[in-house]
Amino acid sequence: MPRRLKTLGAVNRCWGMLGYASTRLVLGGLLVVAAAGVFGGEPGCEPAPPGYRVYPIGWIRKAGGSTRIEIDERYRDAMLGVEALSEIWVLYWFDRNDTPEQRSILQVHPRRDARAPLRGVFATRAPVRPNLIALSRVKILAVRENVIEIEDIDAYADTPVLDLKP
Amino acid sequence: MPRRLKTLGAVNRCWGMLGYASTRLVLGGLLVVAAAGVFGGEPGCEPAPPGYRVYPIGWIRKAGGSTRIEIDERYRDAMLGVEALSEIWVLYWFDRNDTPEQRSILQVHPRRDARAPLRGVFATRAPVRPNLIALSRVKILAVRENVIEIEDIDAYADTPVLDLKP
Repeated sequence: MPRRLKTLGAVNRCWGMLGYASTRLVLGGLLVVAAAGVFGGEPGCEPAPPGYRVYPIGWIRKAGGSTRIEIDERYRDAMLGVEALSEIWVLYWFDRNDTPEQRSILQVHPRRDARAPLRGVFATRAPVRPNLIALSRVKILAVRENVIEIEDIDAYADTPVLDLKP
Repeated sequence: MPRRLKTLGAVNRCWGMLGYASTRLVLGGLLVVAAAGVFGGEPGCEPAPPGYRVYPIGWIRKAGGSTRIEIDERYRDAMLGVEALSEIWVLYWFDRNDTPEQRSILQVHPRRDARAPLRGVFATRAPVRPNLIALSRVKILAVRENVIEIEDIDAYADTPVLDLKP
């Protein structure tokens, strides 16, 4: 992978395991940590920050030339007022790149041009980064039930959506 | 909590438990699911979407009238090029509101004004929402080592930062 210069491989492998450990239930959490240790813990891993869990609230759908955000029915009440907006921020998840290796890439050649100097991912919009959150501003064309029709978005079909903001 | 109209309480309690279940290790995962069932699983919960885990890449620091983003040393290489930017998007986590109850709030009175009509959180910037991701555009004043000095940001001191984007 020529784009990678320095990565967090070892750290992220540790974090993946320790990600099991939630503080929400002490007993369950202890068993979970034990499971990580038994089945995959790596010796010498630093303690990981706890992290936070995010869930899809909808998905990007593409069909017949139209692009839509389909909101999970559980979250439909959160759409009240979206119909009055002309544009919205869409936060989504680069799920095609959700591997420890791609989440450990810290520097890339912008636009995958190997001649371009390496740049840190925090100074680029690269779809590989520690937290795979994407951000796009889109035009709203129509809102019907749990579906928001939008102008095109630079995301694959069925990409998970995490949040919408005015 | 007068701001709440409809929430996802039961669903989120389930998800909190099922959040233990990672697909990354089958054996570990099975044990984890078992732990959730033994110690806290609620009967009748719907299967939850898997979700994704995000980690702090830094923290908002406030001291002596200045505001800084302190980047975790592990991610320092990802800052290359940030010093050339005058502004940056900061994605951070509303960690003060990270409870299942606050993540289940779907509608709020804007600006906590009880006379204002309820609005869905996707049509507001409310700090209670299913995924507690905050978004702010800030001016960069200086970059030194792993610290980015910025103009003020509407976030508490020590708030976890998830991502930076140009």
